Amino acid sequence: MARPPVIGIDSQPTETCIPMKHEFKGMFPAPPTPVTEDGRVHEKALRALLDDNIAHGASGFWMAGTTGEGPILTEDQRDAVARISGEVCKGRVPVIMHVGAISTASAVRAARTARSAGCAAVCCLPPFFFPSSERSRIEHYKAVADAAGDLPFFVYNLPQLTQVETVPALMEKFARAIPTLKGLKHSAPNFADIRVFADMGLICFSGNGAFPLPALTMGAVGTIDAPLSLAPWHYAELFSAWEAGDIARAKALQDGVRKYVDLVWMFYAMPDVCKVVLSARLGIDCGRSIPPVNSLSDEEKREVLRVAEGLGVIKPQPRQTQDLNAEVQRTQRALRNP
Amino acid sequence: MARPPVIGIDSQPTETCIPMKHEFKGMFPAPPTPVTEDGRVHEKALRALLDDNIAHGASGFWMAGTTGEGPILTEDQRDAVARISGEVCKGRVPVIMHVGAISTASAVRAARTARSAGCAAVCCLPPFFFPSSERSRIEHYKAVADAAGDLPFFVYNLPQLTQVETVPALMEKFARAIPTLKGLKHSAPNFADIRVFADMGLICFSGNGAFPLPALTMGAVGTIDAPLSLAPWHYAELFSAWEAGDIARAKALQDGVRKYVDLVWMFYAMPDVCKVVLSARLGIDCGRSIPPVNSLSDEEKREVLRVAEGLGVIKPQPRQTQDLNAEVQRTQRALRNP
Amino acid sequence: MARPPVIGIDSQPTETCIPMKHEFKGMFPAPPTPVTEDGRVHEKALRALLDDNIAHGASGFWMAGTTGEGPILTEDQRDAVARISGEVCKGRVPVIMHVGAISTASAVRAARTARSAGCAAVCCLPPFFFPSSERSRIEHYKAVADAAGDLPFFVYNLPQLTQVETVPALMEKFARAIPTLKGLKHSAPNFADIRVFADMGLICFSGNGAFPLPALTMGAVGTIDAPLSLAPWHYAELFSAWEAGDIARAKALQDGVRKYVDLVWMFYAMPDVCKVVLSARLGIDCGRSIPPVNSLSDEEKREVLRVAEGLGVIKPQPRQTQDLNAEVQRTQRALRNP
Amino acid sequence: MARPPVIGIDSQPTETCIPMKHEFKGMFPAPPTPVTEDGRVHEKALRALLDDNIAHGASGFWMAGTTGEGPILTEDQRDAVARISGEVCKGRVPVIMHVGAISTASAVRAARTARSAGCAAVCCLPPFFFPSSERSRIEHYKAVADAAGDLPFFVYNLPQLTQVETVPALMEKFARAIPTLKGLKHSAPNFADIRVFADMGLICFSGNGAFPLPALTMGAVGTIDAPLSLAPWHYAELFSAWEAGDIARAKALQDGVRKYVDLVWMFYAMPDVCKVVLSARLGIDCGRSIPPVNSLSDEEKREVLRVAEGLGVIKPQPRQTQDLNAEVQRTQRALRNP
Repeated sequence: MARPPVIGIDSQPTETCIPMKHEFKGMFPAPPTPVTEDGRVHEKALRALLDDNIAHGASGFWMAGTTGEGPILTEDQRDAVARISGEVCKGRVPVIMHVGAISTASAVRAARTARSAGCAAVCCLPPFFFPSSERSRIEHYKAVADAAGDLPFFVYNLPQLTQVETVPALMEKFARAIPTLKGLKHSAPNFADIRVFADMGLICFSGNGAFPLPALTMGAVGTIDAPLSLAPWHYAELFSAWEAGDIARAKALQDGVRKYVDLVWMFYAMPDVCKVVLSARLGIDCGRSIPPVNSLSDEEKREVLRVAEGLGVIKPQPRQTQDLNAEVQRTQRALRNP
Repeated sequence: MARPPVIGIDSQPTETCIPMKHEFKGMFPAPPTPVTEDGRVHEKALRALLDDNIAHGASGFWMAGTTGEGPILTEDQRDAVARISGEVCKGRVPVIMHVGAISTASAVRAARTARSAGCAAVCCLPPFFFPSSERSRIEHYKAVADAAGDLPFFVYNLPQLTQVETVPALMEKFARAIPTLKGLKHSAPNFADIRVFADMGLICFSGNGAFPLPALTMGAVGTIDAPLSLAPWHYAELFSAWEAGDIARAKALQDGVRKYVDLVWMFYAMPDVCKVVLSARLGIDCGRSIPPVNSLSDEEKREVLRVAEGLGVIKPQPRQTQDLNAEVQRTQRALRNP
Repeated sequence: MARPPVIGIDSQPTETCIPMKHEFKGMFPAPPTPVTEDGRVHEKALRALLDDNIAHGASGFWMAGTTGEGPILTEDQRDAVARISGEVCKGRVPVIMHVGAISTASAVRAARTARSAGCAAVCCLPPFFFPSSERSRIEHYKAVADAAGDLPFFVYNLPQLTQVETVPALMEKFARAIPTLKGLKHSAPNFADIRVFADMGLICFSGNGAFPLPALTMGAVGTIDAPLSLAPWHYAELFSAWEAGDIARAKALQDGVRKYVDLVWMFYAMPDVCKVVLSARLGIDCGRSIPPVNSLSDEEKREVLRVAEGLGVIKPQPRQTQDLNAEVQRTQRALRNP
Repeated sequence: MARPPVIGIDSQPTETCIPMKHEFKGMFPAPPTPVTEDGRVHEKALRALLDDNIAHGASGFWMAGTTGEGPILTEDQRDAVARISGEVCKGRVPVIMHVGAISTASAVRAARTARSAGCAAVCCLPPFFFPSSERSRIEHYKAVADAAGDLPFFVYNLPQLTQVETVPALMEKFARAIPTLKGLKHSAPNFADIRVFADMGLICFSGNGAFPLPALTMGAVGTIDAPLSLAPWHYAELFSAWEAGDIARAKALQDGVRKYVDLVWMFYAMPDVCKVVLSARLGIDCGRSIPPVNSLSDEEKREVLRVAEGLGVIKPQPRQTQDLNAEVQRTQRALRNP
């Protein structure tokens, strides 16, 4: 059964969200990692952020990925992220904990923590910076998957940053070596491979918040990306419309995602943009990006907040139902009488 | 109004296809260019090919593109393609004639021919091989668009082969310089730009036959690619289902396109594969690829024909309606009770 | 025996240059192709250009390459280049005629012309624009080499523009298939491969005028590039110093090449820059680049001429011997007492 | 004054090497980082390695770079490398300590350690993995250079692994922001930029052991790379010949470097190859590469040792003087009577 639209609910956790018990499907925000001035994970901010996103319809989370600055966190910071998100989401939505690190030893440690922290799955970048052979990639993944025990293992396919593309032929080798391999976050530009991975029986999340509906029509189970953390209600409603077969409504919502994606990409400082906007929404200082990750200048920060304000991202408002309906009707007319 | 499904009609032209009078929308095959042994365009084969595709639901054509080996044709060959397809399609479906060439002079000549031949539009690659400045690209396009007179002008966005990506900022410069610029064939990997181009008011065809439905949900008006020439009925039916808002049917058909795409990409010899398969379907020798464009070995050719036979591409059969319905019902169940 | 330095000789052909009779060694300018306003090769300008370069120490020529706009010339234009340069250089220096074209048929025609025109060798780009398999590349080259008969065949390794890199493993396959394969123009960024190709017994010219001396120390026999056409005396003298084992003089000249390279790259319009500068030097209008190859605006043209004037490229002057000697002494001091 | 050739000295430290007191010039090995089974830096092995390389003519060292697995070392491991190499090299040769890390905080810590450990300079990768703006790159470098105090600061230009190329225009921005910027290790493919950086007054080391002589003729002060750690005597002698102006001897030695480079690149496992070979030479187990850095299988290890044995890298032997002289004479003949 499709979940009801979540438009208009306020930012406190409510009972309207159905516990999904480790179901890997739908819209998973990839939130930033709030940090304090002295370099610890800001627990209160992180809890508030996760509650906010769940209340607004998040189907699950992808923690400590690229927007979460995972590969640059200290091991203690990463452990804290796993522990806190495991606690907050327990019995509510699944947490996929990203554990990729520059060394296998560090990724293995993170995988152990994720398991004991109650995360629903681990996900891992392939080796990065140092060029890697297929054997190294497989051994890296095996060590991490072993450390995660029976948790499902997800591949993180992000060739733009790792220079390693998990093409289907390589994925088959991973699948043969790793019994717990269950899926991937596909952030590679090759859109057609979503279908190929789905045909392999993998749970394929698209990693690009710019096209959640196209990805669903292609065989993805959902989308994981940073914009979902800023506007989870919009993505959740799109997913509901898709599940209900209401293509005109889904298309109208798809047409609207671009503005959230453009917001997140402002000044090429994604983690900083997300922290700045969520600080304003939550009323808790989520800190700033960790150097050398790009950060906003004061002027850029003001501009980001101005745009976010205009998009209703800082103070989410119940959307006027008639507004959305008008949009949907326009889309229906366009589809039927083109 | 949506066109009726074209499943089951035979390969002769019929009156079931509605003349679209230069409407740039739907599924446009990008056919190969049949040639005779002595190096002329094989007029009879080309006429039969176009009739076949129209009968099977093609919404229009994209002639002398990459699969059509346009940039390697002699000027006489290219002129013949424009003249023949203009004649065959007149009053039936629009022909977008690709006129891109390594020199501006040659592209200008082709644009003039396209106009006098009754083509509905011209499309053009940016300068290739020699690195080009923005000014050179704009001047190249202006010269070609001028030569095409009042015909709509389409950009061909194919950075994989030209090393020039028409990103939205560049497209805006083209639009300012060229009053007749109406749209593009977007074959770049950046799937998200489809939405951006649509928001600019451009007619955006996706150039990738692997994801016609996702492209439509993203704002594309249709798809142009080689597989559409081999299985036009499949793509036409998908487009009809989309226009009818029947998302389960459209999704079931989308799930099926991969096999046609894989066929076309066999042995990385797309024009040769298309000629070999269409020769078998039409019963007319369409010739082979023009050297040095990749060609199939005898063994590879046999394998291609075997696969094509298995897919029903050589002898298109009326599909059993209950088969498709079963697929659609499976898709509906998957969507509604996931 | 080393040729004498050619400093100070004027721009008319003289008897000081020793006929090299098809010896592939030294500094080979890659000149532009002068054209008339009505689109023919400007024979008088081309003859003057070749005479000028020979008089200033050119060891041979590389005609109709990238700077020569070879792949964009009409077949008639290319034939004229082969005929004229064959005639002018006969008994003086060897002409390597570049015959690469987008179609095999066109490259084959050019190879036949090169042979009958008295060129010393042919050189050929691999297939470009259309992706090519190894088999296609080999067959393309075989057809062209066959057409050239007993003329030595050179590979043109220019992956920046062709997307095909002739790595050593591929070169070995070419060598097995083509008995007349004798060498290459190596314009790929991989500087280390010069040594590998030399170790394979190939005549390896560097294709980058920025580092003639490093290439010689690496095993190249010389350099082929556009700047050599603008300042042949400088490169010729460097080569003489190298052959004489006068490393301080060679190094001092190497330090000076950058200014000629920077001139040629001004405004990314290499063929146009070369034509504009040589027009001024020869006093004959060499025409302009062929669209869509980048061309200079009027203002850019003035700036190019101003810089060329300052470098002594427009009116070559006998260099003050004491100036060069001072430079050489500085270099010697730097080397010996670092 | 040129240092005497070091051919024939055995692998124990001797008094024949002249202390260079922080002179950044010549041949700097980039050694691997020996580790113990329990994950500490193997102090005894590292001391022996540095002594061996100094005895064989190393002009200085580049520690904890890519071959030294710097970015994957724990902070404690990196500190140990700085401390040990500072001690061993004090008063003998300069140590350039690479401090680049994925986070600015970690690189800053390493820079402080390098300074207190007596290293002669620090070098640093730009931000990697996370995309960086120019401002982020400059701020990252400023923080690291500040932490290094008055130590000279070197840029590490390695776009193959960082996706950031320090082109001359960017280098100028670094130079304006960082008063202690003195030079770079240039490992980018763009060979011509060596001259540009030298013209900017920077100390430019080539980062590619395949072409030490070409780099010197281009304006580099020397070479830094992994093969120099395996065959320091060969590179040292080449540098001596260059300084003595003996180009035939330098060229003969340049012709010979390829075999050492090919050794280091065997199986794309550079750090592991270096550790395995140096373990055999020093008679101390240097450990293996740190996962996921590529490692050799048992069979590959045997093959590496077999090749290294054949090259005289495991038991360096006094080379027969007449052998080298014969080579030099051949080179001289080739140069003079080509």
